[in-house]
Amino acid sequence: MNAYHLVQRKRDGESLTPDEIAAFFTGYATGDVAEYQMAAFLMAVHFRGLSPTELTALVDVMLRSGEVLDLTAVAGVKVDKHSTGGVGDKVSLVLAPLAASLGVVVPMMSGRGLGHSGGTVDKLESIPGFRTDLTVAEFRAQLERLGCALIAQTAEVAPLDRRLYALRDVTATVESIPLIASSIMSKKLAEGIDALVLDVKEGNGAFLPEPEQAEALAQTMIEIGERYGRRVVAVVTAMDRPLGWAIGNALEVEEAVLTLRGEGPPDLREVTIALAAEMLRLAGVAAEDREARERAGRALDDGSALETLRAIVQAQGGNPAVLDDPALLPQAPVRRPIEAERSGFAAAFDVRAIGLAAVELGAGRRALGATIDPGVGFHITVKPGDAVAVGERIGTVYAADPAGAEAAAAAVRAAIRIAAGPPAVATLISRRITAAGVERLAG
Amino acid sequence: MNAYHLVQRKRDGESLTPDEIAAFFTGYATGDVAEYQMAAFLMAVHFRGLSPTELTALVDVMLRSGEVLDLTAVAGVKVDKHSTGGVGDKVSLVLAPLAASLGVVVPMMSGRGLGHSGGTVDKLESIPGFRTDLTVAEFRAQLERLGCALIAQTAEVAPLDRRLYALRDVTATVESIPLIASSIMSKKLAEGIDALVLDVKEGNGAFLPEPEQAEALAQTMIEIGERYGRRVVAVVTAMDRPLGWAIGNALEVEEAVLTLRGEGPPDLREVTIALAAEMLRLAGVAAEDREARERAGRALDDGSALETLRAIVQAQGGNPAVLDDPALLPQAPVRRPIEAERSGFAAAFDVRAIGLAAVELGAGRRALGATIDPGVGFHITVKPGDAVAVGERIGTVYAADPAGAEAAAAAVRAAIRIAAGPPAVATLISRRITAAGVERLAG
Repeated sequence: MNAYHLVQRKRDGESLTPDEIAAFFTGYATGDVAEYQMAAFLMAVHFRGLSPTELTALVDVMLRSGEVLDLTAVAGVKVDKHSTGGVGDKVSLVLAPLAASLGVVVPMMSGRGLGHSGGTVDKLESIPGFRTDLTVAEFRAQLERLGCALIAQTAEVAPLDRRLYALRDVTATVESIPLIASSIMSKKLAEGIDALVLDVKEGNGAFLPEPEQAEALAQTMIEIGERYGRRVVAVVTAMDRPLGWAIGNALEVEEAVLTLRGEGPPDLREVTIALAAEMLRLAGVAAEDREARERAGRALDDGSALETLRAIVQAQGGNPAVLDDPALLPQAPVRRPIEAERSGFAAAFDVRAIGLAAVELGAGRRALGATIDPGVGFHITVKPGDAVAVGERIGTVYAADPAGAEAAAAAVRAAIRIAAGPPAVATLISRRITAAGVERLAG
Repeated sequence: MNAYHLVQRKRDGESLTPDEIAAFFTGYATGDVAEYQMAAFLMAVHFRGLSPTELTALVDVMLRSGEVLDLTAVAGVKVDKHSTGGVGDKVSLVLAPLAASLGVVVPMMSGRGLGHSGGTVDKLESIPGFRTDLTVAEFRAQLERLGCALIAQTAEVAPLDRRLYALRDVTATVESIPLIASSIMSKKLAEGIDALVLDVKEGNGAFLPEPEQAEALAQTMIEIGERYGRRVVAVVTAMDRPLGWAIGNALEVEEAVLTLRGEGPPDLREVTIALAAEMLRLAGVAAEDREARERAGRALDDGSALETLRAIVQAQGGNPAVLDDPALLPQAPVRRPIEAERSGFAAAFDVRAIGLAAVELGAGRRALGATIDPGVGFHITVKPGDAVAVGERIGTVYAADPAGAEAAAAAVRAAIRIAAGPPAVATLISRRITAAGVERLAG
């Protein structure tokens, strides 16, 4: 294996053989390929892409770098959900117990906040006592007992992906469709799932904002799934606005609980039910979409999904009383309203700026390994197309101190454009993508 | 300075400010930018290029990373020559003493062999005793006394370029026009030159084989020169065949001496005189091309250029007797003729393969820091368009052992295509490129 020639050939747009891909990435794992050679290779991939054969070979080597869970002994169809990440995206907190309450087995491994986006693991850890670091044995046992476990990616699963991700994160090679797809799919395949639902975000708060990018990413992941005999269905949802009202870890847990009580923001409920319907159909729990949606809606309204979350929280060491009294979650000492600066219609949201304002408050990490403040964040209650009057309250800042609250309120005001007339509003759930193709949804 | 964002912006095709370029490369020198971040940046440059402003900023930071010689105290116009590298290119060994013998001051710092190509420093070191590691003080003193010194690039000149080059050499980021141009020009500007002549090679033995690449490289270096107030003239010469007959270090010294006696291969003489004429005109020694060529030709024929080389060899510790008796140069023990495999016309040379066959014999380094065998190499006496008869001798292998000689002869035979009819032959010196544009030459 000549690392130089493999980098050179990828740079020049050639396709490497599966053996060459395996040799290069295994060489990286053993130290025969240096960090700088991998960095140059990844940047070349950014420009040249990966062929389907290369992609499969890469997923293979990442899978083989660690443990691949075998959940065949756990009864039921195992279906997970993955979101490409956004602001206010607390869907997993609602969806996982919801699907599990209806008989789907949900072996969910999640990540932490990244850049302007939040992460499910950080949100879960705002519940006092909640453990996201279950061992593989604990994870399996809980799946058997409750049909759902919500944990952080373990060190045993796809460790090569973890190392590669860390390198991509410091070399500006994150936003590459084949690298994103292979990273996600290798982790998901290692979980032992039978099927996967993808929530692919598009809009300025997504990592790949353009519609074509969102579709290409979905299709690439579907193709990888197919090659491993796993059904993958993707739903494209709007991230040109935050999802729901709450942004910030404890605030999002509170909103997830509200939604599990049949209350909460309508957009969050709509996205969650759409994704739940896909999971139910993939698991064979429901045969068609309408039935699946009805069952999911009922499980939110009758409290059965909330009871599944209660069992999960209890099993993973968290204080289940927070589900009844959100005041037991970490609270920010300073609250400050956000008022509309002018009258008109909420026309455009700079979602990335809102996410970064939340990070600035302490809801995310400004540096690797920094601690986060679970209580801080926003409620933003205005949605695209809503009419607002000057001085009307459009949200709330939850901050550690008044100066931070002031700066955050200014940042949110600056990030929401208010227009004189009603704007065109993007469809919340615009497309459904399967191996058969792209299906446009009415919205 | 946020290294990540600078890599990202370059990746996305943005142009960085001079301050950002300076910060990134200075950060690399100090360790704030990691090797892998630089590797990703260089690969992004491979795809995106560098703007003129970025290029100047990069040359600046490389120049400033080390010593910049001030040769203003040395009387005369200082003109150097640089070749983009090829096989059998011993022009410097003839040209430097030739130009110096006519009054040009030639402060020449050269490199070692790289890949399939030879290096002037390796060739010079085949002269017993010859020192290429003069100190800056010795270099300056010799320039004052003899008007010429031939040394290796010192550690004091552009050390950042040296480090960057080593990284490019293991990350497949060598063949990038802005990176090549800034590397060469930063070293040449640091030498204290007033003007520079470039011998830009094109054809399959060149590092950038395509005509457009050769022109773009020449124009980029000319532009950098202009911005530093240095005149740069480029001549594009054919590297679709080896230059001259000899390939290999001592063999090339011997051929250079022949040429300095008015003998030697016609193509080597032609290229050397063309480059000498440019140097004489840049130095103001001759006003127009015809006069310059005549003076250069005379200095070869009357032995005055050879006497300058004799003085240089003596001054730098070498044995000047080799100029009279080439048998004093290192000799290979095995000589083996190379015969034509069929009758016809020499139509195409795989020059890179011939260069690599010479490396395989020991004329170059197969690994970093390996020692070379100064006596080995080839004479290849057939040129494009020459008629050959089957079994006719077209060259000689000079090898350390019979097996090596056999393999090398086979490699050379395989690298020379013999066609039934006379081929179209590329012009040896096809274009002259200045700040004013590209001038096609009759050939």
